[in-house]
Parts: sequence; C-alpha cells; structure tokens
Amino acid sequence: MALQPLYDRLLVKRLEEGEQQSEGGIIIPDTAKEKPQQASVLAVGKGRITEDGNVQPVEVKVGDKVVFSKYAGTEVKVDGDDLLVIREDDVLGVIE
Amino acid sequence: MALQPLYDRLLVKRLEEGEQQSEGGIIIPDTAKEKPQQASVLAVGKGRITEDGNVQPVEVKVGDKVVFSKYAGTEVKVDGDDLLVIREDDVLGVIE
Amino acid sequence: MALQPLYDRLLVKRLEEGEQQSEGGIIIPDTAKEKPQQASVLAVGKGRITEDGNVQPVEVKVGDKVVFSKYAGTEVKVDGDDLLVIREDDVLGVIE
Amino acid sequence: MALQPLYDRLLVKRLEEGEQQSEGGIIIPDTAKEKPQQASVLAVGKGRITEDGNVQPVEVKVGDKVVFSKYAGTEVKVDGDDLLVIREDDVLGVIE
Amino acid sequence: MALQPLYDRLLVKRLEEGEQQSEGGIIIPDTAKEKPQQASVLAVGKGRITEDGNVQPVEVKVGDKVVFSKYAGTEVKVDGDDLLVIREDDVLGVIE
Amino acid sequence: MALQPLYDRLLVKRLEEGEQQSEGGIIIPDTAKEKPQQASVLAVGKGRITEDGNVQPVEVKVGDKVVFSKYAGTEVKVDGDDLLVIREDDVLGVIE
Amino acid sequence: MALQPLYDRLLVKRLEEGEQQSEGGIIIPDTAKEKPQQASVLAVGKGRITEDGNVQPVEVKVGDKVVFSKYAGTEVKVDGDDLLVIREDDVLGVIE
Repeated sequence: MALQPLYDRLLVKRLEEGEQQSEGGIIIPDTAKEKPQQASVLAVGKGRITEDGNVQPVEVKVGDKVVFSKYAGTEVKVDGDDLLVIREDDVLGVIE
Repeated sequence: MALQPLYDRLLVKRLEEGEQQSEGGIIIPDTAKEKPQQASVLAVGKGRITEDGNVQPVEVKVGDKVVFSKYAGTEVKVDGDDLLVIREDDVLGVIE
Repeated sequence: MALQPLYDRLLVKRLEEGEQQSEGGIIIPDTAKEKPQQASVLAVGKGRITEDGNVQPVEVKVGDKVVFSKYAGTEVKVDGDDLLVIREDDVLGVIE
Repeated sequence: MALQPLYDRLLVKRLEEGEQQSEGGIIIPDTAKEKPQQASVLAVGKGRITEDGNVQPVEVKVGDKVVFSKYAGTEVKVDGDDLLVIREDDVLGVIE
Repeated sequence: MALQPLYDRLLVKRLEEGEQQSEGGIIIPDTAKEKPQQASVLAVGKGRITEDGNVQPVEVKVGDKVVFSKYAGTEVKVDGDDLLVIREDDVLGVIE
Repeated sequence: MALQPLYDRLLVKRLEEGEQQSEGGIIIPDTAKEKPQQASVLAVGKGRITEDGNVQPVEVKVGDKVVFSKYAGTEVKVDGDDLLVIREDDVLGVIE
Repeated sequence: MALQPLYDRLLVKRLEEGEQQSEGGIIIPDTAKEKPQQASVLAVGKGRITEDGNVQPVEVKVGDKVVFSKYAGTEVKVDGDDLLVIREDDVLGVIE
C-alpha cells in the first residue's frame, strides 16, 4: 500500500544517524537534538500548477537523498513506517 | 440530499480507526489524541479558477482515500453524517 | 427595496434551525452555540474581475441553499429582514 | 470646491438615520452604536489599474446609495460637509 | 536644489491651516491634533513599473492640491522647507 | 576591491552632516539623532527580474545623491569604508 | 560527496576572519559578535522557476565571494565542513 503525494509534495523517509554518516557525511548540526533533516525520496507529486494552468514538474526524483528545512512537513505512518510528506520548496539540496 | 463543494473544495468523510488499519495502514501518529487525518472523498468541486479565468480541475477523485493536514477544513453534518469540507491544497496524498 | 451585492459578493438569508432539518439535513455541529451557517441566496454580484480585466462570474445562483464558513460576512437589515453579505469564497458548498 | 477621488476610491456622504429608514430600509444592526454604513456616492475615481496597465472602471456610479464595511475609509470635511473616502472594495452592495 | 521622487512617489508640501480654509475648505477632522493631510504637489516620479516592465504614469500632476492618508510618507527638509515624500497610493483625492 | 550589488540593490555611502548642508540642503529632520538618510551611489545592480524573466534596469545611477528610508539596508565595511547596501525601492528620491 | 542546491539556492562556505581581511577587506561590522556574512560559493541551483514555467538562472557563480544578509540560510555539515545553504535573494553583492 503506498501514498501518492499530490502536486509539489514529496513522500520521504528520514535517513537514520548511521545511514547519514556513511551515505553522504551530511548532517545538520544538532544545535538542539532535533530529528535529522536528511531523507530518501520514496514518491513525488506530478508538480506545481503554474498560474496559466501548466504543470511545473518537480526536480527531485524517487531515490534521491535530500537535505530539507528543519520544521518542514507532516509525519505519516505507512505500513508501520514513519514517513514524512514535505513540499519540494522545503528541500535545500540533493546529496550527490 | 447532498452537498456539492465549490471550486477547489472537497467533501470528505473521515476513515474510522479500524478502517484505516485494514484499508491502507496509514495513520498519522497521534502525538496528541487528534482526529485521524485520513478520509474518503465523497464529492469534489469543479476546480480552482486561475488568474486568466480557466478552470484548473482538481486531481483528487470521488472514492479516493486521502491523507490531509491536521487542522484542515470545516465540519458539516449531512443527513446525520459527520463530514468535512477541505481544500484540495490540504491533501498531502492519495492512498493507493 | 433590494440590495444588489457587488462583484463576488452574495446577499444571503440564514436558514432557520427548523428549515435546515427538513431542507437538507445539513447542520454545522454547534461546537459553540453559533449562528447556523446555512443560508439561501437572495442576490449575487456579477463576479470577480480577474487581473486582465475579465469578469469571472460567480457559480452560485439565486435560490441556491449554501453552507458557508462560520465567521464570514457582514450583517445587514433590509426591509426588517436580517440578512448577510458574504464573499463567494466563503461558500463551502451548495446543498442539492 | 470638490474632491476628485483617485483610481478605485469613492467620495461618499453617510445617509442619516432618518434617510436610511425611508430610503431603503437597510440599516446595519448597531451591535455597538457605530456610525451607519450607508452612504450616497458623490464622486468616483476612474478605476483600478490592472497589472497590464489597463483601467478597470468602478461599477458604482455617482448618485448610488451603497452599504459598506464598518471600519472602511478616511473621513474628510469638504465645504463644511462630513464626508468619507472609501475604496470600491469596501462596498458590500448598491441599494436598489 | 530639488529632490526628484522615484517611480510612484510624490514630493509634496503640506498646506498650512489657513491655506486649507481658503483654498478648498477641505480639512481632515482633527480627531487628534495631527498634521493636516492636505498638500500641494511639487514633483512626481515617472510612475510605477508594472509586472511586464511598462511604466504606469502617475495621475497626480505638479501643482495639484491633494488630500492623503494620515500616517503616510517620510519627512524631508529641502532648502529649509519641510516637505514630505509619499506614494501616489496614499493620495485619497485631488482638490478641484 | 569593490562590492558589486546584485539585481535591484545599490551600494551607497552616507553623506556626512557637512556634505549634506552644502551639497543639497536636504536633511531628514533628526526627530531622533539617527544616521542621515542621504547617500552617494557607488554601484548599482543590473536591475530587478520581472515575472516574465526580463531585466527591469534600476533608474538610479552611479554618482547620484539619493534620499532613502530611515531603517533601510545592511551596513558593510569595504576597504575600511562604512558603506550600506539598500534596495532601489528604499530610495525616496534623487537630489538634483 | 557533494550537496547540489535546488532552484535558487546556493551552497556556500563562510570566509574566516583572516580570509576576509586579505581577500576583500569587506567585513560586516560586528555590532554583536555574529558570524561573518562573507562566504565563498561552492555550488548553485539551476535557478528560480518564473510563473510561466521558465528557468531564471542565478547570477552568482561557483567561486564567487559574496556578502549576504545576517540571519540567512540553514547550516549543513558536508564531509566535516560547516557549510550554509542560502537563497540567492539573501546575497547583497559579489566581491570583485
């Protein structure tokens, strides 16, 4: 069972502390012990609708590892997994 | 008797706790005992009017199961049923 | 004597408790003893002017029964009748 | 000596209590003893300039009797008369 | 030495109490002893730039006497004169 | 070494008290002993990008003396000089 | 391992106190002992998407030294380096 995000939203799963170290060495300094802002993209919406009705596809792709703003998104549990739905605009960058 | 939502609004009925478990296994973690944010779509508006007067149809369809932002919408009682009118922009994703 | 609403405004008359029960069975749960948000549409404006100067007619018609957001509109008394002027965007849906 | 309102502004004179009763029977319930929101239109601006530079004429005409939002406008005294300059968007409707 | 206002700004000089009485009989009721909101226009900007890059000239002309919103503008002293720089949108109307 | 402002930003140097008196006789009344809002323009950005991607050049030129809003801009020190980066929209007018 | 910023975002590394002195002599006066606002650009997004769906490339290039607004951006650690992701609009100017 999956959750298909709408428009410019992304379904992401946070990368655990360990995963982050090995994966990309990109961690957000834990000024306060907050949840890591790195995640892996599980599903993407079709994109934002511009004022003249065209679809502006999202740039982020399924499988990308991304860094995103601290307080972004809404938490959802899908098949027992703790996931997050964020807007593409919350994404700071893609880990290469 | 029905309620036809206007423009980009949706008429939805919350999925009860049980329904959510079996249906899609998608529940919003109850940080506070809030009402579940999963619902079934009963009716949809024709869509948002863009600045140049065109209708931007909604993507969500009648019968879809959706996850939506916690504090979204206005509660209405229709023929004894507790329903909710939300905006399409409140929808995080469609359960597949 | 009548009051012709301007642009995207509507002149409506609240449906009394009784009327609501029989009419459409749609009542807004009285979390707080607020005024019912169902009304009958008495007059409509010609519609909103879009940025390029076109008129975007309102969708709601005279005679429609509508459900609208709780704190919407300005109260006016016309020929002794307690009426309300609301914006079309305050309308959640049309009772069918 | 007159005051020519600019763009989408209107110069109006409040209808006194008495005038309102006979004129249109439209009074705004005095929840608090506020100034009546009915007025007669003395002068109108040429209209709002849309984003692409066109003039969007005002719909309200000189001589119209209008109902407008409670706290709208700026008071001005012209030749001893207490008048008000409001925006067309403050007008709820025209009394017919 | 002069000050050429930019875009949709106007350089104005307040009309003194006396000037107002004789000139146009238009005074803003001094609910609180505020500075009079009538002024004479000394210089105007070339106009606002619309979104598609065109210049939308100001309607107000040098020499006009205007009434403007109470708290508008920034005070400047030019060659010993106390003047004010306001936006055209702060002008309620032109005294004719 | 110079600082090239971006888009609609300007690099300016405040005119000292003395410079202001002789230069243009334009001083902002020191209601509170604030820093003078007159400055000389050292560098300008290429201009604002409009919604359809065109460059809207700034009107202010290098060498102009300008009056600007009191609390505008960010202070920077370049080669020991105390300078300010402001937006063109903060400029009230150009001293002629 | 790198972090590719999205759209109009930039990945930058702060210039240390020493680097600033020699590099461009541009320091932001430390009214309060805040982090220096000068940085070197390590990576740039493809640019902002305008309303009609075109890409508006960023003006700032990799290798530029920039001055940016004090409280801008989100801190990220990449391969042990303390970096910052800011928006191009936070950049006051490019050090030449």
